[in-house]
Amino acid sequence: MNQQNSETAATALPVVSARIYPKGGLDVLSRDEVARLKDASSGGMHDLLRRCALAVLTSGSASDDPRAAQELYPSFDIQVLQQDRGVRIDLINAPAMAFVDGEIIRGVAELLFAVVRDLAYTAIELGPEYAEGLETSSGLTNAVFGLLRNARILQPAEPNLVVCWGGHSIGREEYQYTKNVGYELGLRGLDICTGCGPGAMKGPMKGATIAHAKQRRRRTRYIGITEPGIIAAESPNPIVNHLVIMPDIEKRLESFVRIGHGIIVFPGGVGTAEEILYLLGILLREENAGLPFPFILTGPTAAAPYFEQIDQFIRLTLGDAAASRYEIIVADPEKVAKRMIAGVRKVREHRIAQKDSFYFNWGIDIPLDSQQPFVPTHEAMAALDLRHGRRPQELAADLRRAFSGIVAGNVKEDGMRRVEKFGPFQIHGDGDIMQALDALLRAFVEQRRMKISGEYRPCYRVIA
Amino acid sequence: MNQQNSETAATALPVVSARIYPKGGLDVLSRDEVARLKDASSGGMHDLLRRCALAVLTSGSASDDPRAAQELYPSFDIQVLQQDRGVRIDLINAPAMAFVDGEIIRGVAELLFAVVRDLAYTAIELGPEYAEGLETSSGLTNAVFGLLRNARILQPAEPNLVVCWGGHSIGREEYQYTKNVGYELGLRGLDICTGCGPGAMKGPMKGATIAHAKQRRRRTRYIGITEPGIIAAESPNPIVNHLVIMPDIEKRLESFVRIGHGIIVFPGGVGTAEEILYLLGILLREENAGLPFPFILTGPTAAAPYFEQIDQFIRLTLGDAAASRYEIIVADPEKVAKRMIAGVRKVREHRIAQKDSFYFNWGIDIPLDSQQPFVPTHEAMAALDLRHGRRPQELAADLRRAFSGIVAGNVKEDGMRRVEKFGPFQIHGDGDIMQALDALLRAFVEQRRMKISGEYRPCYRVIA
Amino acid sequence: MNQQNSETAATALPVVSARIYPKGGLDVLSRDEVARLKDASSGGMHDLLRRCALAVLTSGSASDDPRAAQELYPSFDIQVLQQDRGVRIDLINAPAMAFVDGEIIRGVAELLFAVVRDLAYTAIELGPEYAEGLETSSGLTNAVFGLLRNARILQPAEPNLVVCWGGHSIGREEYQYTKNVGYELGLRGLDICTGCGPGAMKGPMKGATIAHAKQRRRRTRYIGITEPGIIAAESPNPIVNHLVIMPDIEKRLESFVRIGHGIIVFPGGVGTAEEILYLLGILLREENAGLPFPFILTGPTAAAPYFEQIDQFIRLTLGDAAASRYEIIVADPEKVAKRMIAGVRKVREHRIAQKDSFYFNWGIDIPLDSQQPFVPTHEAMAALDLRHGRRPQELAADLRRAFSGIVAGNVKEDGMRRVEKFGPFQIHGDGDIMQALDALLRAFVEQRRMKISGEYRPCYRVIA
Amino acid sequence: MNQQNSETAATALPVVSARIYPKGGLDVLSRDEVARLKDASSGGMHDLLRRCALAVLTSGSASDDPRAAQELYPSFDIQVLQQDRGVRIDLINAPAMAFVDGEIIRGVAELLFAVVRDLAYTAIELGPEYAEGLETSSGLTNAVFGLLRNARILQPAEPNLVVCWGGHSIGREEYQYTKNVGYELGLRGLDICTGCGPGAMKGPMKGATIAHAKQRRRRTRYIGITEPGIIAAESPNPIVNHLVIMPDIEKRLESFVRIGHGIIVFPGGVGTAEEILYLLGILLREENAGLPFPFILTGPTAAAPYFEQIDQFIRLTLGDAAASRYEIIVADPEKVAKRMIAGVRKVREHRIAQKDSFYFNWGIDIPLDSQQPFVPTHEAMAALDLRHGRRPQELAADLRRAFSGIVAGNVKEDGMRRVEKFGPFQIHGDGDIMQALDALLRAFVEQRRMKISGEYRPCYRVIA
Repeated sequence: MNQQNSETAATALPVVSARIYPKGGLDVLSRDEVARLKDASSGGMHDLLRRCALAVLTSGSASDDPRAAQELYPSFDIQVLQQDRGVRIDLINAPAMAFVDGEIIRGVAELLFAVVRDLAYTAIELGPEYAEGLETSSGLTNAVFGLLRNARILQPAEPNLVVCWGGHSIGREEYQYTKNVGYELGLRGLDICTGCGPGAMKGPMKGATIAHAKQRRRRTRYIGITEPGIIAAESPNPIVNHLVIMPDIEKRLESFVRIGHGIIVFPGGVGTAEEILYLLGILLREENAGLPFPFILTGPTAAAPYFEQIDQFIRLTLGDAAASRYEIIVADPEKVAKRMIAGVRKVREHRIAQKDSFYFNWGIDIPLDSQQPFVPTHEAMAALDLRHGRRPQELAADLRRAFSGIVAGNVKEDGMRRVEKFGPFQIHGDGDIMQALDALLRAFVEQRRMKISGEYRPCYRVIA
Repeated sequence: MNQQNSETAATALPVVSARIYPKGGLDVLSRDEVARLKDASSGGMHDLLRRCALAVLTSGSASDDPRAAQELYPSFDIQVLQQDRGVRIDLINAPAMAFVDGEIIRGVAELLFAVVRDLAYTAIELGPEYAEGLETSSGLTNAVFGLLRNARILQPAEPNLVVCWGGHSIGREEYQYTKNVGYELGLRGLDICTGCGPGAMKGPMKGATIAHAKQRRRRTRYIGITEPGIIAAESPNPIVNHLVIMPDIEKRLESFVRIGHGIIVFPGGVGTAEEILYLLGILLREENAGLPFPFILTGPTAAAPYFEQIDQFIRLTLGDAAASRYEIIVADPEKVAKRMIAGVRKVREHRIAQKDSFYFNWGIDIPLDSQQPFVPTHEAMAALDLRHGRRPQELAADLRRAFSGIVAGNVKEDGMRRVEKFGPFQIHGDGDIMQALDALLRAFVEQRRMKISGEYRPCYRVIA
Repeated sequence: MNQQNSETAATALPVVSARIYPKGGLDVLSRDEVARLKDASSGGMHDLLRRCALAVLTSGSASDDPRAAQELYPSFDIQVLQQDRGVRIDLINAPAMAFVDGEIIRGVAELLFAVVRDLAYTAIELGPEYAEGLETSSGLTNAVFGLLRNARILQPAEPNLVVCWGGHSIGREEYQYTKNVGYELGLRGLDICTGCGPGAMKGPMKGATIAHAKQRRRRTRYIGITEPGIIAAESPNPIVNHLVIMPDIEKRLESFVRIGHGIIVFPGGVGTAEEILYLLGILLREENAGLPFPFILTGPTAAAPYFEQIDQFIRLTLGDAAASRYEIIVADPEKVAKRMIAGVRKVREHRIAQKDSFYFNWGIDIPLDSQQPFVPTHEAMAALDLRHGRRPQELAADLRRAFSGIVAGNVKEDGMRRVEKFGPFQIHGDGDIMQALDALLRAFVEQRRMKISGEYRPCYRVIA
Repeated sequence: MNQQNSETAATALPVVSARIYPKGGLDVLSRDEVARLKDASSGGMHDLLRRCALAVLTSGSASDDPRAAQELYPSFDIQVLQQDRGVRIDLINAPAMAFVDGEIIRGVAELLFAVVRDLAYTAIELGPEYAEGLETSSGLTNAVFGLLRNARILQPAEPNLVVCWGGHSIGREEYQYTKNVGYELGLRGLDICTGCGPGAMKGPMKGATIAHAKQRRRRTRYIGITEPGIIAAESPNPIVNHLVIMPDIEKRLESFVRIGHGIIVFPGGVGTAEEILYLLGILLREENAGLPFPFILTGPTAAAPYFEQIDQFIRLTLGDAAASRYEIIVADPEKVAKRMIAGVRKVREHRIAQKDSFYFNWGIDIPLDSQQPFVPTHEAMAALDLRHGRRPQELAADLRRAFSGIVAGNVKEDGMRRVEKFGPFQIHGDGDIMQALDALLRAFVEQRRMKISGEYRPCYRVIA
């Protein structure tokens, strides 16, 4: 698969240079496609490619901070070269940990090909001439479909894919719990899809691996769906055997919803809360009323308060009906798995009745504004309308945005700068809703699920 | 795979109606793609689809004349329908011979999917917006590549594909000889690609089937490459397990040249002679000078005169150097196979040295005018220049056109009408070349390889 | 697989010498087993091994008379040699037709390994110490089971094995009919088992091969069951992909009955008639009364009289009830296949109900005297009792013996010598039965299904 | 695979009753074999079968003490029943942990079938009539071969099997080290064979599993070889995917030596030291002088003293030449793997040169007295001769026996009783050898590798 010249650079860490010839999807390209791929990878996309490749090449390292990787391997570079017979990837001063006796580890090579494949697809297929199609909801869904199909994620098979969400830096007990749930899912023949990082994104895959081995399942899927901003900050865990890089966070979220046959949420930080609100914003739409969609929040006993607070917040703001869309299960991995199996069975029946495919949920309605990025400017925040009486799905979507903006104002560089410059966000909303939001955020801080420096101080003002 | 309502129509022949759900390429389509496929198949493409489908459904029938099929199954129809989970094909009053106890024969279903797949690809991918790309040589090659890749013909594998050309209505002895050659090729692990009809297109596949069974090869390829005009007149033979329908004759010829690792020509009619000239027109180009390309003319003892005449004609017109591009082997199947194996080995080495792919011969140069159709009008015929002293590759190309035009003037409806209306074609050329051409055609008539009614009378005049 | 020194001996026919290393069953032997195998093959078994090997090496030759092969390859020899890593087979002056460019054809090699494997098993496992077990009915059945298991014929799978019996030298029309029946069986997913020679033993396999290819069945079974006396006179046809050599004719017959899920009888000579009586002798036993066993006699229109005569003979001697055990179908291959499918389905249900295995019919009762050879001495013939009033199964068995003896007396060297020496056989029986027997034999002679020199003259006298 | 009636017994732990139909080896048995299997399992072998089955059914439990299992599941029982179609296994009140939603976990079922298969083989094939063969060295080797072949361990494949020995109750650091070594072995495509328990028998398999997944190896072998006494005390770890139960410890040791292509020894207790002496007793024989056999002692830094002491003891007693048969590598898993790869390569070349099989080391000489059990009676101990000047392989073998006896006298019930009754063992030997032995044992006690109650007191007297 590769031919290489090993050399150790002046850095502390051993490096290897190698030439790799991809397989599976990149091996039958036309000359034109190879040329466009080469152009894209040497042009504006090159830095992105370099960072993503490095994340993959350090997958499974003790430190799972790829930003550190950038500093540890300063002389690393990647070139995609054209050969008539296909593509050649040149790695220069790559981390030696990705190699065994000069040969790249096969699983790492596969992830590397996935990086090149997805960035190439985005560059080639989602370029300017397609821009028009990307302004409609169905156009965006088509783009998601195209990327997932190109990544060979979409295959005719029985429904068995469980998406697991949750924090990437969770405690040992919570991590062990995610493994136990993954084990019970795996024993029952379910495959796993996560955001592909550490913590709650790795645990379920690890548990499922052991269970699948015990059940002698050989064709298993541990799908990791990421996006350029995330993968550059979080190496894919080494269990992932299918990696997809979606162009942005919204397409990544849509992918989870369209390919998963059920979603489990483990404890996490504010990001996890946002994901819950995103999903509720979709499931509460009238268009999705009859749609079966197993949605389980679960964690060990110690995590019970976390889910209670979220549950209360949802009941207060979106009503009890909203809470009926999910189930909270505490400290019972076997029950989680059994409920998921039962739920997936209903999904299967529904797809057959609706003649929808098993591998892509065409039937679920995702509105355009959930497909498009939300940038928390002062104007965007002022446009939110957090009041009782709105339709729950709209309120859920706005709550997600408020949440996202407040977090940005508190901990993200961009948001903090804006608040410093223009003063606190002004949010229109009912007082009790805003207080509940505030209480939830404070609880996260107390539980150390949101890291802020100094005391927590709201970055917004309520306008009644 | 299918669910059907069997019914016998009022026709003499038993028919079956069935619903079929395709696999393999048509099973993971987007909603848009399914809609476009449905539109295309119900619009202008419908009659073409219907005729091709009928050819496939009567594959292997005693009578291999699909035109008869049109009359035998007048109420046959096919509909491509959209379902969110993919495509559904409805067959109405289809030939019962394609079914066993109400279930469609699996191999027939695969050929049927291939028909839908290729017509859909052509309609969807090679539509108006691509027209521009089709005006350049590389654009046309890309289109050929795209179609073949979509048909999953292009796979990374060791070079072993032998293209066999020759007549579709050959005598028993010649047919038996093609089987013997196929047998010797198959014993040596070679796969077969032909024009997918009967005669010399079937014999080599049949022989190879027996040899492959003896050698216990399970993954075998019997590739048939056809085009709409041909398939509607010639059912694919039942051994074909990969069928591709190229949009026109020129793309079909280019496919043979790009995917074959060697070509064997059996005796045939005038069409076979044209194919030989087409290939010489390419191989004699300076750009292809160093390119290894096994090219063998072979037949039983009785066919020796046929090849001698062709050889003499080539030597006279294109020179002895041209004749060095092929080898004539008479009545020795084993030698044919051994020479082919040796030739393919050289092709392999050359591809590695040139970093060209094994599955698609990017390196061979095919000029734009060989990629574009030749329509034998009086103007086009008058523009030919059949003189000694021209570059052999250009003379070969013009000879092929002259040949094509003269045959049209003699036996094809279109050409005969033109000659009747405007008088004989006027061809500029040297007398000896024209006489040789004439002698060759007369020999074909005598050998009953070209069927004309009445006495043979040249339809052209030589302008010195 | 092999390494060889090619050389052409002084004979007219090209020969090859080669060393072959077996796979599949012979590749994991203990040192003891290899030694015993070597001893057996160099001792008394050597000539048998040599003749069987030659039959296999000339499989598919134009002349299917292996006795001719003995003369054509007089210097051929085979040695089984011990190597610690397993077995090595040395072929000396073997027919070149079994090789391609010095490499043995893989399918031929597999048949060769089967010959060595089965003769070895018989020599090693059925040797003196097992003799005791071979004196009981269950001991003999165990031996049959052991041989078939060792040959890897017994595999857990759905019931789909149809045994085809019939003549080895049948006319062109009858041969074509056996192909058509095989084709219809193959289309319906049925596998074929025959006596592995030419004629009715090859046709059904050939037809099934084409059908299996059309249905894209890759794991197909064309089982040939033979015995040393037969294989040395009849090369296995080249379609056979599982070959078993049973030690004698009776174990061969028992194998057919135990592994087949149904039996089809095509027209044949006297041997075929004997096989019909053998099967009736078993099926008419009370022990097998409720046992479903599809049993179909079939042939083209021209063969109708053949089956009529047999049917009349059976009805006269064994009664109409006996005739209800089989079905005669004339000139309708599709009907044969449909009845067989229906019958096999009943066999399947019965096996499940009886908890009998699918791959070996433990439930059918075969009496010891049908498992033991019948030698037609004057004493044995005089002991027969062909009278109305006996139990049909016993009368069937005795009829088979009478039949066998009379044929021997007429055409087999051994039998003819005995009759010459001791006078005609004396057979005790009812006159009408003997007349019917006589009429049947005369009809066979007229239909040229039994070849005698001069006029047919009974070799027996009836003792009322 | 199974049909079951779930019920919860009165015990604290949940249990399940189920019927299981085995696959793979037990699915094609003759009626006789099934009957003998049934007899064996309901007769004297039943208690053994019950204990082994329970060990397998509790594989992977937190407590890996199967003796506890006997108490935790007092009502558990297993019955092997005859059905014509094969074998049925009835589990009564089996641990619920082996089931998922009433279905037995497939991997557990496979281990269970292995237990039945091996005990059946031993009972059926190694019964009285074979006893004679078991009195010779080659007879015993044949028995080992037969058992391993029947367990489908012997397969033609490239040499890649590394045997790992070491303690079952090692510290966390040592366990982590065995995982790291397994990881490096797995990255290089090596498979693992161990004694199948916890500790150093599990760690290498666990590490290899992760590496194999990264390298996308799907056909992996984690072979566990145990014997009835051990499996009843140590559940196979859940990674084992091939389990073999040899009849006794000596056949188990011979299996390791014959199927392994190299052996790695991790730190362990006295048992591990015995295994090292056993292997040296074989490798130091003149018959095995030229035989390549990679033999590596390795552990983390903290384990260095352990191997130093062993090394010193060997050099003192057996000489420096003996020490050249192994290599000690401290705290360098990558180096261990590289040396093993290099060693296995030499083994491969040697086997080819010697025409020995890859899957079974016929070439290594194991003397009869190493194949037979050593029972440490006072007579046997007095017969030892531990003096300088003896041939190293004989001294090694006697040292192993002395060692074994002394350990028995100190910690095993049987041995302690004997010493109490007859006084200390009297051992003939040189003083320095006895002192070294004593020092080694004391070191083990200090390092808590040998658990004794109270102070360590030698149970022997040296007779000069």
